[in-house]
Amino acid sequence: MPLVTAHVSMSLDGFVAGPDQTLEQPLGVGGLELHRWHLGDPDNDVDRAMTERILAPHGAYVMGRNMYGPVRGEWDSFADGEMWRGWGGDEPPYHAPVFVLTHYPHESVEMAGGTTFHFVTDFDEAMERAIEAAGEETVTIAGGASAVRQGFAAGLIDQILINHAPVVLGGGESIFADLPDLRLRPVEVHSSPLATHIVYDVDRS
Amino acid sequence: MPLVTAHVSMSLDGFVAGPDQTLEQPLGVGGLELHRWHLGDPDNDVDRAMTERILAPHGAYVMGRNMYGPVRGEWDSFADGEMWRGWGGDEPPYHAPVFVLTHYPHESVEMAGGTTFHFVTDFDEAMERAIEAAGEETVTIAGGASAVRQGFAAGLIDQILINHAPVVLGGGESIFADLPDLRLRPVEVHSSPLATHIVYDVDRS
Repeated sequence: MPLVTAHVSMSLDGFVAGPDQTLEQPLGVGGLELHRWHLGDPDNDVDRAMTERILAPHGAYVMGRNMYGPVRGEWDSFADGEMWRGWGGDEPPYHAPVFVLTHYPHESVEMAGGTTFHFVTDFDEAMERAIEAAGEETVTIAGGASAVRQGFAAGLIDQILINHAPVVLGGGESIFADLPDLRLRPVEVHSSPLATHIVYDVDRS
Repeated sequence: MPLVTAHVSMSLDGFVAGPDQTLEQPLGVGGLELHRWHLGDPDNDVDRAMTERILAPHGAYVMGRNMYGPVRGEWDSFADGEMWRGWGGDEPPYHAPVFVLTHYPHESVEMAGGTTFHFVTDFDEAMERAIEAAGEETVTIAGGASAVRQGFAAGLIDQILINHAPVVLGGGESIFADLPDLRLRPVEVHSSPLATHIVYDVDRS
């Protein structure tokens, strides 16, 4: 089995996106502040090293539909019916299969540089296919909150990197909703003024 | 002005006590797990050092009524009318004036070892009196959630130590409710398997 990881930036009150998410503000009110540590040029070595780490290659990715694009409803309801091809331009940074969770099936979209987006309607199926595709390499759940939450609920996540940003959002999306028995074990801690980066193993004991 | 500090243990989802608090379970369901790092004998040097740190002397304390005792309603409604004298025995660990927030006035209670409990019905008055009593030493808000929240809301807290325990509670008491503009700045980080201890300055910039 490949290692299954996840990665989120989180507020002090436990939210990975703020309240009132809109197309214009996809991270909700204040949500962008969670990402100050890696937006623009990180200005210290710790944030730089963590930024490189989250861009490190994985064998396969699973992500929620909002991580893939702004399209809601049917794919052809957007942009005069032209298929959305992800936020990452012609050559997205994944270089691996990406399984996108969606209620709307679509044929796969092949991009330059080895990234192929597959559209899957079922979380378990997405994880199975990602695990198979990854072989010996890691599978990572690239967000959003709901995908990570499903990964925890299914007992599939081995390790999560949380970038704890020292801000309060007051509401929004949580990866921990309905997971009151989740116990983690910090195994690595790195800190900068903009975030405390903690790698946690999921504690199955 | 003395430095005003606070100190709480907190879950990953941002709660300092679990849901369903009762007299038998004053920290709510799961709340005791937040304190595993300092309950019993801390079994590593980091937790031991942090335990010593939270027991370090302060010039004065402010605390919510539940931190002081289990009494609800009128003081003489409890224990056949005998006044509750705090959780800390005859010689409580404060050795300084402690201002207890309560809707029910009472004359002060003097204990062995220099601790005197004063009962104050107004948060601002409690802070004013604590600041005056502390002189050059620190004032610390010893909890619970509501007292710390009022300290943030009043802009009085300079520094908070949060012991982030790697557990999820799923609900409970938050020190951050209705404080969506609060921004902190981590200035010290110490980690153990049971908690990541972070000292934050309140960012007023």
